Amino acid sequence: MGLIGLGRMGGNMRERLRRAGHTVVGFDRNPELSDASGLRDMVAQLPESPRVVWLMVPVQAVDSVLDELVGLLSDGDIVIDGGNSKWTNDKEHAARLAERGVRFLDVGVSGGVWGLEYGYALMVGGDSADVQHCMPLFEALKPEGDYGFVHSGGHGAGHFAKMVHNGIEYAMMQAYAEGWELLMASEEVENVSATFESWREGSVVRSWLLDLLVAALEKDPDLQKIRGYAEDSGEGRWTVEAALDLAVPVPAISASLFARFVSRQDDSPAMKMIAALRNEFGGHAVLPEDD
Amino acid sequence: MGLIGLGRMGGNMRERLRRAGHTVVGFDRNPELSDASGLRDMVAQLPESPRVVWLMVPVQAVDSVLDELVGLLSDGDIVIDGGNSKWTNDKEHAARLAERGVRFLDVGVSGGVWGLEYGYALMVGGDSADVQHCMPLFEALKPEGDYGFVHSGGHGAGHFAKMVHNGIEYAMMQAYAEGWELLMASEEVENVSATFESWREGSVVRSWLLDLLVAALEKDPDLQKIRGYAEDSGEGRWTVEAALDLAVPVPAISASLFARFVSRQDDSPAMKMIAALRNEFGGHAVLPEDD
Amino acid sequence: MGLIGLGRMGGNMRERLRRAGHTVVGFDRNPELSDASGLRDMVAQLPESPRVVWLMVPVQAVDSVLDELVGLLSDGDIVIDGGNSKWTNDKEHAARLAERGVRFLDVGVSGGVWGLEYGYALMVGGDSADVQHCMPLFEALKPEGDYGFVHSGGHGAGHFAKMVHNGIEYAMMQAYAEGWELLMASEEVENVSATFESWREGSVVRSWLLDLLVAALEKDPDLQKIRGYAEDSGEGRWTVEAALDLAVPVPAISASLFARFVSRQDDSPAMKMIAALRNEFGGHAVLPEDD
Amino acid sequence: MGLIGLGRMGGNMRERLRRAGHTVVGFDRNPELSDASGLRDMVAQLPESPRVVWLMVPVQAVDSVLDELVGLLSDGDIVIDGGNSKWTNDKEHAARLAERGVRFLDVGVSGGVWGLEYGYALMVGGDSADVQHCMPLFEALKPEGDYGFVHSGGHGAGHFAKMVHNGIEYAMMQAYAEGWELLMASEEVENVSATFESWREGSVVRSWLLDLLVAALEKDPDLQKIRGYAEDSGEGRWTVEAALDLAVPVPAISASLFARFVSRQDDSPAMKMIAALRNEFGGHAVLPEDD
Repeated sequence: MGLIGLGRMGGNMRERLRRAGHTVVGFDRNPELSDASGLRDMVAQLPESPRVVWLMVPVQAVDSVLDELVGLLSDGDIVIDGGNSKWTNDKEHAARLAERGVRFLDVGVSGGVWGLEYGYALMVGGDSADVQHCMPLFEALKPEGDYGFVHSGGHGAGHFAKMVHNGIEYAMMQAYAEGWELLMASEEVENVSATFESWREGSVVRSWLLDLLVAALEKDPDLQKIRGYAEDSGEGRWTVEAALDLAVPVPAISASLFARFVSRQDDSPAMKMIAALRNEFGGHAVLPEDD
Repeated sequence: MGLIGLGRMGGNMRERLRRAGHTVVGFDRNPELSDASGLRDMVAQLPESPRVVWLMVPVQAVDSVLDELVGLLSDGDIVIDGGNSKWTNDKEHAARLAERGVRFLDVGVSGGVWGLEYGYALMVGGDSADVQHCMPLFEALKPEGDYGFVHSGGHGAGHFAKMVHNGIEYAMMQAYAEGWELLMASEEVENVSATFESWREGSVVRSWLLDLLVAALEKDPDLQKIRGYAEDSGEGRWTVEAALDLAVPVPAISASLFARFVSRQDDSPAMKMIAALRNEFGGHAVLPEDD
Repeated sequence: MGLIGLGRMGGNMRERLRRAGHTVVGFDRNPELSDASGLRDMVAQLPESPRVVWLMVPVQAVDSVLDELVGLLSDGDIVIDGGNSKWTNDKEHAARLAERGVRFLDVGVSGGVWGLEYGYALMVGGDSADVQHCMPLFEALKPEGDYGFVHSGGHGAGHFAKMVHNGIEYAMMQAYAEGWELLMASEEVENVSATFESWREGSVVRSWLLDLLVAALEKDPDLQKIRGYAEDSGEGRWTVEAALDLAVPVPAISASLFARFVSRQDDSPAMKMIAALRNEFGGHAVLPEDD
Repeated sequence: MGLIGLGRMGGNMRERLRRAGHTVVGFDRNPELSDASGLRDMVAQLPESPRVVWLMVPVQAVDSVLDELVGLLSDGDIVIDGGNSKWTNDKEHAARLAERGVRFLDVGVSGGVWGLEYGYALMVGGDSADVQHCMPLFEALKPEGDYGFVHSGGHGAGHFAKMVHNGIEYAMMQAYAEGWELLMASEEVENVSATFESWREGSVVRSWLLDLLVAALEKDPDLQKIRGYAEDSGEGRWTVEAALDLAVPVPAISASLFARFVSRQDDSPAMKMIAALRNEFGGHAVLPEDD
């Protein structure tokens, strides 16, 4: 199998596939990580046929990689987009590749830096025959046991499922974060970290995210060393967009997303306006913007 | 009439009452503002009877002022709490005064620094006979015309109505503020201030708050000189509390209130947790808290 | 001027323009409303040149009308889209028309059924020369006085401004609606309608929407005759979409939009899941879906 | 140990304690469940001393039970309130019992109907000596292993921790529920239940609640048989109340709570107002309230 993109995710996936006995030819623009000098070289190293090439590249790079890749592949080869592509692009990518007889699967991959050890949750969109062909790879990547893999539907279904997964994740993280802030703000609970830790068994809120939260608090109980600054990677916004299109109310997911937006603002324009209005009607003092 | 508290609100109210021909004896702890040396002196200057004493003091001071005042008044006198007291306190205050035969009205007062000129919107809670007795004062304070005064109900109804008024106000301000931030963030609309100004007639969103918003933008079109920092004065929180008690969903009002809370945080504890979790599961970089 | 679409908005606009002395040839698919037998006939009735044709048609119809219209117009003619088109389409429409030398303006129009009497708030996007050419029409349509018209920017700016206007409108309406529900749910305020009416002068929340709210309560004080069912017309969703693109937090506007989504659901799928989960972990009873 | 209240929670707790070898004298107003004819009888059956009495009664009943119980206990006895009492009452209860020399612990208990088998997560507030004395009971009730028990702080800290736990739970449930509704509304993902099931391993959103969600979908994949109607049991509201007091923004938790409020309304008063306003300004049709 060819694997394009050997960053945090791709590098670990290569390792997990190799541990399972698969031959993986990885390509990355960083030659220290790469097994091939270029896409052409990577494809040339793949045994015939059909060849499987898995992309783990940033969203912005998918189109240009596909453009180059399509000319190197043959009828019946399979391209898998395992990155965080927007699901709306998958049908178009599938169609573009199909013109050359190349097959396409979109795969939402969850698991982060822990996937190497525990396996990656995989959500796959595309045709059943292609999914079947790639099952040995999916088996190697997914966690042991009954779960961690689903063929969600046609082209786009994998990324759509992963998108909603991440939307849920945003709101779950926000749930814990709000609870933590409240416990820290109050003086009632004297040992907040121990309280969270105790919830790891028996409580309704036990989860893998809670385990990670406890791990984070063990390193830095007050999170003093880091700023309250949170990026968003696209899936949260797309989840809300999809909800808007379908008239599905998503108040908790959108609240979680907006909280991240606010976290990245040096100062809130909206709150400037609130302050200005309070001054206009009530003569309430405003704080000068003194930097 | 006696008027206790001659700050931004009380001072202007005294002036508006006097312009209407009423005799007002004001007391303030600041002797430069005060017409009396103390509460006793103020009461002594009031013509018998029944005397009317209007409180315009901070929420925190109401109880102690009432304690002192009750001993100075007589059967049939009327005390008006025109400050931002929580409505739940009004019944208790009414009962405490009633033990001495003193009557009580709670009055929610809106109008801010513009009330002197345009009049104050008054929402009154208490018994009809007491309201009738004080109508000449209310007539002097309210705006000209058919509106700006309501006898909302029994003790507490005035402050309850004012509380909800302010809750609505929070969400209206937030509405404009979000729209302004969006227009400023986009490059589509080149003249944001002129766009808001144009809405003053013919648009669905025309309002007095919009007029104030335009006035604020005239002084400082990008609001560069002020920080996005907004206090809340109690009524917004009480509105949400009352909604919780009555199981009334108030998503827009609560969102507006939370936006103010966030605006006052140097850094968001909740967002620290989000950043920590993203680091734990995805290896995403966190920003150091280095200031 | 040609005016395509003589529904609730277009019909009144024709009337207001005629009252101001303008010649308007209206076309509508309903022959009882129409001044022309078709677009070709309408254009033929317009005096040369340049001709101005104003569209007031549903969003879905704009493209097909433009397709037909472009073949009937000449170099220098001006097409105005005054409907609720999405701002992202305006640049494309402008470009398509420009291929034939036809000019384009997008105009956001606010005012509803009251526009005939009070005038319409107009937000215009496009080139200054075209705006200047059409100013007599804008002057006739806008309210008297200094406000109600703005040239917001280039193509798309008119509809973008109108979109944000409507987003603000959604949250303002939600603000009043939440306050009204809370006042009705509580027993503190005995005369809710009178309380809202009193706010029409002197209060911070006075506005045109409040005037309409009072008018609605005069007809039906408890709103017993209508269902809590609210459509949304696109602009609210687009406002949130634009905010997502620009990472602008819009918690109050999105909350207002989601409330409308919920209002149209016979039963909430999300709340079914909440009920199912409560049953799973706590044995809490669920209500059967049979009434 | 005495145990008052043998409902869904209390009954299972008695069983779990007995399995661990503890002697439990349970009292319930339902004689078929009860081991004693009354509180006096229950206390009489307890071996001296100090005696431990655990309350698992509805919030509304705690005060009356404590009133009766205090007269039956002696210096050094310990009362545990394991129900869903509001944390603000705990200090008062502790003080009232302390007048008689009786000790008090507040314990938040999580685990629902699964606690009998897996153990209950316990969050305890009170003095360390009392906690130590009761540790054998806590050991029997909590899950095996390192987690599931915490001494969170002084009186009130147990219920405060449990309250925040439940607030977090509300928003986590809402997160899954919103994601489920979106997946069901879209046609992209063809097998929604299988997608959720796959997330049980390897995904970021894996949790005990997810396991329950999958179990619910196995029984009724579209949740057709139940209504989208969700009660709230107090803790969610108290969480938001506490957040208001401390100026902590809790947008996701409050959104989750408001969604439950809405789920219980036959029709939304706020949305009636929105519909009425849309009719007033735009002539938009309203739906008649015809049932």
